Amino acid sequence: MNAPGIFITIEGIEGAGKSTAIAGVAEWFRAHGREVDCTREPGGTPIAEAIREVLLNPAEEDLVPPTELMLMFAARAQHVAGRIKPGLAAGKVVISDRFTDSSRAYQGAGRGMDRSLIETLAQTAEQGVSPDLTLLLDLPVDVGMKRAAARRGAGAHDRFERERHDFFERVRAGFLELAGQSTRFALIDAAAPIADVHMQIQTELSARFLLGGGDRG
Amino acid sequence: MNAPGIFITIEGIEGAGKSTAIAGVAEWFRAHGREVDCTREPGGTPIAEAIREVLLNPAEEDLVPPTELMLMFAARAQHVAGRIKPGLAAGKVVISDRFTDSSRAYQGAGRGMDRSLIETLAQTAEQGVSPDLTLLLDLPVDVGMKRAAARRGAGAHDRFERERHDFFERVRAGFLELAGQSTRFALIDAAAPIADVHMQIQTELSARFLLGGGDRG
Ligand SMILES: Nc1ncnc2c1ncn2[C@@H]1O[C@H](COP(=O)(O)OP(=O)(O)O)[C@@H](O)[C@H]1O
Ligand SMILES: Nc1ncnc2c1ncn2[C@@H]1O[C@H](COP(=O)(O)OP(=O)(O)O)[C@@H](O)[C@H]1O
Ligand SMILES: [Mg+2]
Ligand SMILES: [Mg+2]
Repeated sequence: MNAPGIFITIEGIEGAGKSTAIAGVAEWFRAHGREVDCTREPGGTPIAEAIREVLLNPAEEDLVPPTELMLMFAARAQHVAGRIKPGLAAGKVVISDRFTDSSRAYQGAGRGMDRSLIETLAQTAEQGVSPDLTLLLDLPVDVGMKRAAARRGAGAHDRFERERHDFFERVRAGFLELAGQSTRFALIDAAAPIADVHMQIQTELSARFLLGGGDRG
Repeated sequence: MNAPGIFITIEGIEGAGKSTAIAGVAEWFRAHGREVDCTREPGGTPIAEAIREVLLNPAEEDLVPPTELMLMFAARAQHVAGRIKPGLAAGKVVISDRFTDSSRAYQGAGRGMDRSLIETLAQTAEQGVSPDLTLLLDLPVDVGMKRAAARRGAGAHDRFERERHDFFERVRAGFLELAGQSTRFALIDAAAPIADVHMQIQTELSARFLLGGGDRG
C-alpha cells in the first residue's frame, strides 16, 4: 500500500533519542537519492497540530483517557490523509517521529485502554498505510527521563512528561511486547552513545533497503 | 445509570429550533423544582470547547471524515466525564443541545461513516450515560436553512453550515430513522410556530416525567 514511497516510524519513550535519530535516517535516505519528508505525531498538518495543542498542554480540567485516545487517532487520521499518503504516493520516504505504536504503548499499555478499541481506531485512521520499518529506540526509563529533563532545561513539562516512572515502565514494556510480535520492528539499544545508535540504525537500513532486494521504491 | 439525575437531549438539523427549545425545557423543569444544567455539543467543558473550535472553524486544509468523527466523540467523552455525569450524580436535569444521535445522523447518515464504528465510539464516550428523553425537532431542510441564514445574518458559515441541501436531507432522514427505532425519542413538528413547538414539548415532558410514574428524579 505504501509503494512507490517508503514509510518509516520511530518509536520510544521520552528522551529515547527519536528526534535525534530521525535526522540520521533522513540523511541516509537522501544519500541514497531519495526525497524525504520528516514529520511527527501528534501533528504533521495544521489541523493535527491544533489537536496536538489540546493533547499536550496541561489544562485545569483533567483530559480523560478515552478523550486522549480519540484525539490521538483523530490527529493521526488527518496526518495520514493530508501528509503521509500524499508523500508516499509521490514516492517519498516519509519518516514519522511516533505513529500508531505510540498509541498502543501509551494509551494501551500505559493507560489501560481496550486493545481491540485501539485496533479498530487504528484501522480507521491508517487508511491502508502501514510502516515498512519501525525503529524502536529502547532504553531504561531512568536514562530517558534524565535526558528529557536535561533537554527541557527550565521549560515546562507537557502532559505526558508529567507522568510518573511506573507509567513509563508500562509504556516501555508495551513497546517491547509489540517489537517481539513483528519483523516490521528493529530494536535499537538507545542507551548507547549517539554515534553507536546511528550505526545500529544504518545497519538496519542497509539490511532492509539495500541488501534485501534493493531499494524498494 | 442516570439517576438521581435526568438526561435530556435535543436533536435536529441547523435551524430546527434546538437553542430556542432548550430554554423552554429548562423552564419547565425549574418550575417543577429541579436544578437544571443546560449544555451543548460539541463542547460543554473547556477542553471540549477547544475541540469544538477545531471542528467548526473552516481551515485551509480539508478536515477528513474519520478525523471529524473521532473529534466529535473525543469532545463527547470529555463532556460526559467532566459535566454530564457529575451533573446527573448531583441530581440535576442535564439538557444537552445535541448528543450521540447527531453523530449518528451527521457522520453516519450524512457522511457515510461506518455504523458499527460509530456505535463502538458511542459506547466508549458515553461511559454508561444515556438520554432519558430525546426531543427530535423535525422540519423540512429548506425551512431550517432559511431560519439558520436569518439568525446568522452577515456572520460567517461554520463548517457544517457550508454543507449542501442533499447532505442535510440525509441527516434529517437519519434522525427520523433513529426516532422510529426507540421510544426514547419524542418527535416534535418543528415547522410549527414557536409557541406551538413549546406546547408539544411540554406535553411530552408532562407525559413522561409527571404522569408516567411521577418525577423520576
Ligand atoms: N544516544 C544518546 N546518548 C546521549 N544523549 C542522547 C542520545 N540520544 C539523544 N540524546 C540527547 O537526549 C535528549 C533527548 O533526545 P531526543 O532525540 O530529543 O529524544 P526524544 O525525541 O526521543 O524524546 C537530547 O538532549 C539529545 O541530545
Ligand atoms: N418554531 C419556530 N418558528 C419560527 N422561527 C423559529 C422557530 N424556532 C426557532 N426559530 C428561529 O429560527 C432561528 C434558528 O433557531 P435556533 O433555536 O437557533 O435553531 P438551532 O439551534 O436548532 O439551529 C432563530 O432565529 C430562532 O429564533
Ligand atoms: Mg522528540
Ligand atoms: Mg443552536
